[in-house]
Amino acid sequence: MTTQNTGLPASKDAAALGSHKDYLSGSRPDLRVPVRRVHLSDGRDVTLYDTSGPYTDPLVTTDVRRGLHPLRAHWIVARGDTEEYVGRSPRPEDDGIRHTSPRGGLRDLDAVFPGRPRQPRRARDGRAVTQLAYARRGEITPEMEFVALRENLDPAVVRDEIAAGRAVLPANVNHPETEPMVIGRNFLVKVNANIGNSAVTSSIEEEVEKMTWATRWGADTVMDLSTGRNIHTTREWVLRNSPVPIGTVPLYQALEKVDGRAEELSWEVYRDTVIEQCEQGVDYMTVHAGVLLRYVPLTAGRRTGIVSRGGSIMAAWCLAHHRESFLYTHFEELCEILRAYDVTFSLGDGLRPGSVADANDEAQFAELRTLGELNRIARSHEVQTMIEGPGHVPLHRIRENVELQQEICDEAPFYTLGPLTTDIAPGYDHITSAIGAAVIGWWGTAMLCYVTPKEHLGLPDRDDVKTGVITYRIAAHAADLAKGHPGAREWDDALSEARFDFRWEDQFHLSLDPDTARSFHDQTLPAEPAKTAHFCSMCGPRFCSMRISRDINEKYAPGESSGEPASEEEIRAGMLAKSREFAESGHRVHLPLAE
Amino acid sequence: MTTQNTGLPASKDAAALGSHKDYLSGSRPDLRVPVRRVHLSDGRDVTLYDTSGPYTDPLVTTDVRRGLHPLRAHWIVARGDTEEYVGRSPRPEDDGIRHTSPRGGLRDLDAVFPGRPRQPRRARDGRAVTQLAYARRGEITPEMEFVALRENLDPAVVRDEIAAGRAVLPANVNHPETEPMVIGRNFLVKVNANIGNSAVTSSIEEEVEKMTWATRWGADTVMDLSTGRNIHTTREWVLRNSPVPIGTVPLYQALEKVDGRAEELSWEVYRDTVIEQCEQGVDYMTVHAGVLLRYVPLTAGRRTGIVSRGGSIMAAWCLAHHRESFLYTHFEELCEILRAYDVTFSLGDGLRPGSVADANDEAQFAELRTLGELNRIARSHEVQTMIEGPGHVPLHRIRENVELQQEICDEAPFYTLGPLTTDIAPGYDHITSAIGAAVIGWWGTAMLCYVTPKEHLGLPDRDDVKTGVITYRIAAHAADLAKGHPGAREWDDALSEARFDFRWEDQFHLSLDPDTARSFHDQTLPAEPAKTAHFCSMCGPRFCSMRISRDINEKYAPGESSGEPASEEEIRAGMLAKSREFAESGHRVHLPLAE
Repeated sequence: MTTQNTGLPASKDAAALGSHKDYLSGSRPDLRVPVRRVHLSDGRDVTLYDTSGPYTDPLVTTDVRRGLHPLRAHWIVARGDTEEYVGRSPRPEDDGIRHTSPRGGLRDLDAVFPGRPRQPRRARDGRAVTQLAYARRGEITPEMEFVALRENLDPAVVRDEIAAGRAVLPANVNHPETEPMVIGRNFLVKVNANIGNSAVTSSIEEEVEKMTWATRWGADTVMDLSTGRNIHTTREWVLRNSPVPIGTVPLYQALEKVDGRAEELSWEVYRDTVIEQCEQGVDYMTVHAGVLLRYVPLTAGRRTGIVSRGGSIMAAWCLAHHRESFLYTHFEELCEILRAYDVTFSLGDGLRPGSVADANDEAQFAELRTLGELNRIARSHEVQTMIEGPGHVPLHRIRENVELQQEICDEAPFYTLGPLTTDIAPGYDHITSAIGAAVIGWWGTAMLCYVTPKEHLGLPDRDDVKTGVITYRIAAHAADLAKGHPGAREWDDALSEARFDFRWEDQFHLSLDPDTARSFHDQTLPAEPAKTAHFCSMCGPRFCSMRISRDINEKYAPGESSGEPASEEEIRAGMLAKSREFAESGHRVHLPLAE
Repeated sequence: MTTQNTGLPASKDAAALGSHKDYLSGSRPDLRVPVRRVHLSDGRDVTLYDTSGPYTDPLVTTDVRRGLHPLRAHWIVARGDTEEYVGRSPRPEDDGIRHTSPRGGLRDLDAVFPGRPRQPRRARDGRAVTQLAYARRGEITPEMEFVALRENLDPAVVRDEIAAGRAVLPANVNHPETEPMVIGRNFLVKVNANIGNSAVTSSIEEEVEKMTWATRWGADTVMDLSTGRNIHTTREWVLRNSPVPIGTVPLYQALEKVDGRAEELSWEVYRDTVIEQCEQGVDYMTVHAGVLLRYVPLTAGRRTGIVSRGGSIMAAWCLAHHRESFLYTHFEELCEILRAYDVTFSLGDGLRPGSVADANDEAQFAELRTLGELNRIARSHEVQTMIEGPGHVPLHRIRENVELQQEICDEAPFYTLGPLTTDIAPGYDHITSAIGAAVIGWWGTAMLCYVTPKEHLGLPDRDDVKTGVITYRIAAHAADLAKGHPGAREWDDALSEARFDFRWEDQFHLSLDPDTARSFHDQTLPAEPAKTAHFCSMCGPRFCSMRISRDINEKYAPGESSGEPASEEEIRAGMLAKSREFAESGHRVHLPLAE
């Protein structure tokens, strides 16, 4: 693998987009929170949340073969509650290279991550090294301060939300490269992007590039759902280069280790895989421990049965062994492992509905009740936990999902896939699901797992990843506005003001996707002067409502047209003055419209 | 203009999409309601609503230069309450050709529609020839029967909804080519697509093609918002070739007639334009009669003032003359004109919010109260009426819009633009608004005006029109599901069943956009055998949850896997049998997963 093949986005060009990377300063010199400052033509700045990591900082040299600077390393070490140790040795089967393979050995040796060697780290003496444990003890960690600055909130609020289990801060001690972020209903709604190769297609390079590309457009976390060969190595490259928390479904890799035979899965194989991934630095893990044997028959009458990969694998295991899964029976042991690395649980909804016909059924809610129990167990071990949710749900049944989840799971953060609000539009499921995602976010979902246009049809490529992320950023922001998140509307207001003032460049720079906004504008009015034209291609100069409207604004709120809205008193005064003027001019005014 | 340049979609290829055009039979031989029959591989059919008109019927020869067959002509004549008359003579200024123009005359003579000459038709003796008047008299017209078949409802329900003013059936007596459709909250949610050239770009050919293209993908009505030259002629071509109702904003053309000087607009010029358009066959007209002089100052403190073109023109007029607009003062006279042709009012919301900051403000709701008054006046004249709505509204303020509109406007159909739920994503406003459209449709909006990706940036091209229509069909269908519209879920269920059964071809054929679904699938797994593969590219054969799930289905509901869902009793019986089998086989089952 060569660096030039990774095709990382031209990431230092932020200045060209009318913005630059900046940092908010914390209480210590090594606590710098990245933001994007958008420069408006009137000299003001608008500060936006920034997930793109060091790649968009022109002062930082990044090298995908060396990985990112481990910014949290000092904080982790300084706590003194973890230690390095000789970790598990990598094995060929970690990358899906079977002992039975005629070619044997590490065929893809050249793919091994070349960065600095290092020992894994874990808690000393069985201590809880989780942000939940620190929060409960009343501590405000540097990670908590970081997200407080990032979300413009009091650090004590962050600590209290985490302590109450209403929020999680995924931050494996072995992923010091991550820029802390928080997931909870009282924070900005977050977006997860899935990447991952499969048995059919895709390569390591593509996955690393998809990760940086997804965070470039606003993904808050990334799940690596690789299933084919090179699972271990792909993940290593992704983790070492990722500024955002990485999630996985360890079951996928475990299944590869038993040659795809679900019934041969065991606690031992699974445990080994979880430790492997904890040592690498995975920040949160989807665990389908709520799929109980007695729930499986509840899916038999469904329109689309079990659509979760993890759910179907565990259901198959339960049937094969006719007993409860090792995930459920060894759950407390699993808690102990995750606690030692501060890996966050994402309790998977293996029985989520895969069609609107199956939404909110007994199988789904039976599993949810079990997730509620498991959430309590995880909390008692001081492991951070969030709960996954559907899937396919028609609009009128979405609210029940959030309300039940919040009640049953003691307000643990909800992390939902969409939901898709109709099944009829394959090829457009980013849209069918963005509708559901915005609504479920409004009602309290903390993180939205994106859906790309390729959902149900194929693997997303680079364009699909971007479309999925942008679409979900829209859904998340629509939810933030609806929840009245402090400061969320500033962005909308700044953009609408630029629109009203015909500051086209400011409009582009403030757009969620500046490139697309500009190119769409230029398709109809390409010339440079059109960027400052006081009209646009939709109506032409004569029909421009904005122009007329500005005129009205100037009439009724003199001197106020570009600043604060006029008060009612000012408007009344303007009205009166205008009435006199009308009378004096013979009730006729020549408007700029007629120019 | 030559026919080959119009580039009409290859419209007879429906068979290639696994479906064919068919008709439902009514009580008379000339009452045939178009549907699309999708053929599934198991021999069943799924019947879908079809807006595409004769263009998708291989047995019909269409010629854009002759126009469509006037299918309602006999019904209109047979009622005996209308008569042909010598209409208004076309004038150069109807097409924006000014008397002051140095070139003079009909420069674009070759663009004149070449189809059969005909006289316009209007009510005899001031009679009411509206579907509302007929419904109130208890009559079920062929148009009502047509939409009843189309919506799978009792014709009496259609009549009663129209009689109550809760629904409109836009059907100008001079647009006999239209296939009747109904707009009301107790019917399927409808979608409008806007087309129209502007002073800056676009041609007649393009507009006709956009119209047929929009209906091909599911537009229920089309608004021709042309503003530049050739307004009259473009509209003539569009009307004569349109199988769906056509809406306009007569004010745009009236303004062209006074050389763009808003203050020179008068009742006389406006009235002349309305009659011109009534005679051509426009089915519904947006009239911004609710913009009162005293409301204009209420917009001065807004973030984005007045963003409606019509609203800003009327506001400018009111300011210039310092009195109420001719639309308001002559509203009853306007009712009399529309009644004579059965043109439906679409009472425009000229003061709709243009940013989330301005949503639900006093300017908006003051105008809404006036629209409520005007709605009552229109009804007293037996003119069908719907009410237009926003705009830009954050999610949590959408419901109030529908509830107030339904209360103030006596349940008249609500027809909304989006609304956009955030301002930050120019280039993606089909998505920011589809979120709002689905939610407002769920809460009772009868028709959704589409928004394309070019909104705020430029004029939509062919691809944008398709994207806008498909996106809004998604929103409308999500709303239909949420409202529990009878039969709406059959489509989703058929597609999900095909997905679960790995009937890929059936999945494509049932998709809202079969072409895109197929091409996305083929990008990852192009070979023909992949169309029958019992797995897909996302997970590969080993991880396929659908396969595992089918296995579970077969275990617990033997012989039921492809038919109706198993009853609980059958599931219990299957469970018991399976338990025994597990015991006998030593608690180990080899799943197909491991193949």
